[in-house]
Amino acid sequence: MVRLFDDERLDHIVSDENLRIIQSPTIFSYSLDAVLLANFAYIPIAKGNILDICSGNGIIPLLLSCRTKAKIMGLEIQERLVHMAKRSIELNHLENKISVIQGDLKERQPDLQQSFYDTVTCNPPYFSNLTKSNHNQSEYMTIARHEVCCTLEDVVRACKLYVKPGGKVAIVHRPERLVEIITLFRKYKLEPKRMQFVYPKKGKEANTLLIEAVRDGSVGLKVLSPLYIYKEDDTYTTEARKIIYGK
Amino acid sequence: MVRLFDDERLDHIVSDENLRIIQSPTIFSYSLDAVLLANFAYIPIAKGNILDICSGNGIIPLLLSCRTKAKIMGLEIQERLVHMAKRSIELNHLENKISVIQGDLKERQPDLQQSFYDTVTCNPPYFSNLTKSNHNQSEYMTIARHEVCCTLEDVVRACKLYVKPGGKVAIVHRPERLVEIITLFRKYKLEPKRMQFVYPKKGKEANTLLIEAVRDGSVGLKVLSPLYIYKEDDTYTTEARKIIYGK
Repeated sequence: MVRLFDDERLDHIVSDENLRIIQSPTIFSYSLDAVLLANFAYIPIAKGNILDICSGNGIIPLLLSCRTKAKIMGLEIQERLVHMAKRSIELNHLENKISVIQGDLKERQPDLQQSFYDTVTCNPPYFSNLTKSNHNQSEYMTIARHEVCCTLEDVVRACKLYVKPGGKVAIVHRPERLVEIITLFRKYKLEPKRMQFVYPKKGKEANTLLIEAVRDGSVGLKVLSPLYIYKEDDTYTTEARKIIYGK
Repeated sequence: MVRLFDDERLDHIVSDENLRIIQSPTIFSYSLDAVLLANFAYIPIAKGNILDICSGNGIIPLLLSCRTKAKIMGLEIQERLVHMAKRSIELNHLENKISVIQGDLKERQPDLQQSFYDTVTCNPPYFSNLTKSNHNQSEYMTIARHEVCCTLEDVVRACKLYVKPGGKVAIVHRPERLVEIITLFRKYKLEPKRMQFVYPKKGKEANTLLIEAVRDGSVGLKVLSPLYIYKEDDTYTTEARKIIYGK
């Protein structure tokens, strides 16, 4: 049994047919970027602790839970999204594996242990300024997409605060912010080690950046083989299909 | 007529059959990376001034001369390579377009005007440490490939010194040094604006980085479509062939 509000719907997570998630077209629905990040991030498998910040409706914890026995914690500022995430966790009987708490990443969270997590993931707001693109969207979506409640530096500072020394921070963002991301990672002793650019299709510029840093890591970056989402005929590439549909 | 030493040979530049260049298997021969950089860099076409630092045997000035009426200056620390470059320039009757001077980029060069050049290009030494890979190479090659005479920071500082405000700095390097490059570019107010990764073939990690910054530029980076060099059957891709053979 699940309690759904009028503006919500219950979706299957396409990469794992056994998982379901509460979404809302006006409040929050997960994007491809969350799926790409969950696929990209190195996480502990047999045991350990993972933190997902800017967790939204809990999509990343839900996706990660399929491939790890680690405990997963989510942090999200919006009460309504936390409520959606908690009901999705119950619905999937994952209460023993995933917890989501409401809180502001700019404040120290007493429920989150500092310098503790093996991996911290984050799909933060991408846009530093409010633009006309947000005129038609709800306040929920504006907060999720724009740096209204937190800046990129707040996000990076929080990642650093909770990841353990030698632990990994993996984020998804826009390539045009790469220089800022690298500058901030360096400022907070998070050394970029692995990066992948995602291209909508051949011949186009990259529109998504996946980047992983290691706290107190040594210098040396790998740039992975590019990921293309669509083929020339606008169907998914084999690689994208495997990530999105899990097969 | 051209004077060639015993250890030198006269090669055609494959991207432009009319150009010839003096090379030496033991002293210096140009690499694909120089060709990629010359192709990647935005340069003024009708008029203007271009500076190439770490200019080697002058390959980049020679390649750029085919597509611009701008004056091109080369700076190279090794006398022997400057000598090769000067003879190649004469051989191609490009004395009015290209000049190469001998000098150390760590010192202010009286022949080079500061904050003056529209574009500064550089294919610097890639390796920060001397490794066993250089045991079998000449001192000329060691200086060209390893940071013996200059560090990455020396290179970036020199680029900044000579490029005009709003002018472009384009370099080729290894992706593993990207974080250092971005950090140094930022330190010297060179804002990365355009970047391309080069992959030996599909499914491999990037092995070459092309990056262009604008002095005092605004934030915002474009990551161009990736460039693959070889197809599955180890022949050149169409894109690579076009850059290398000019057709």
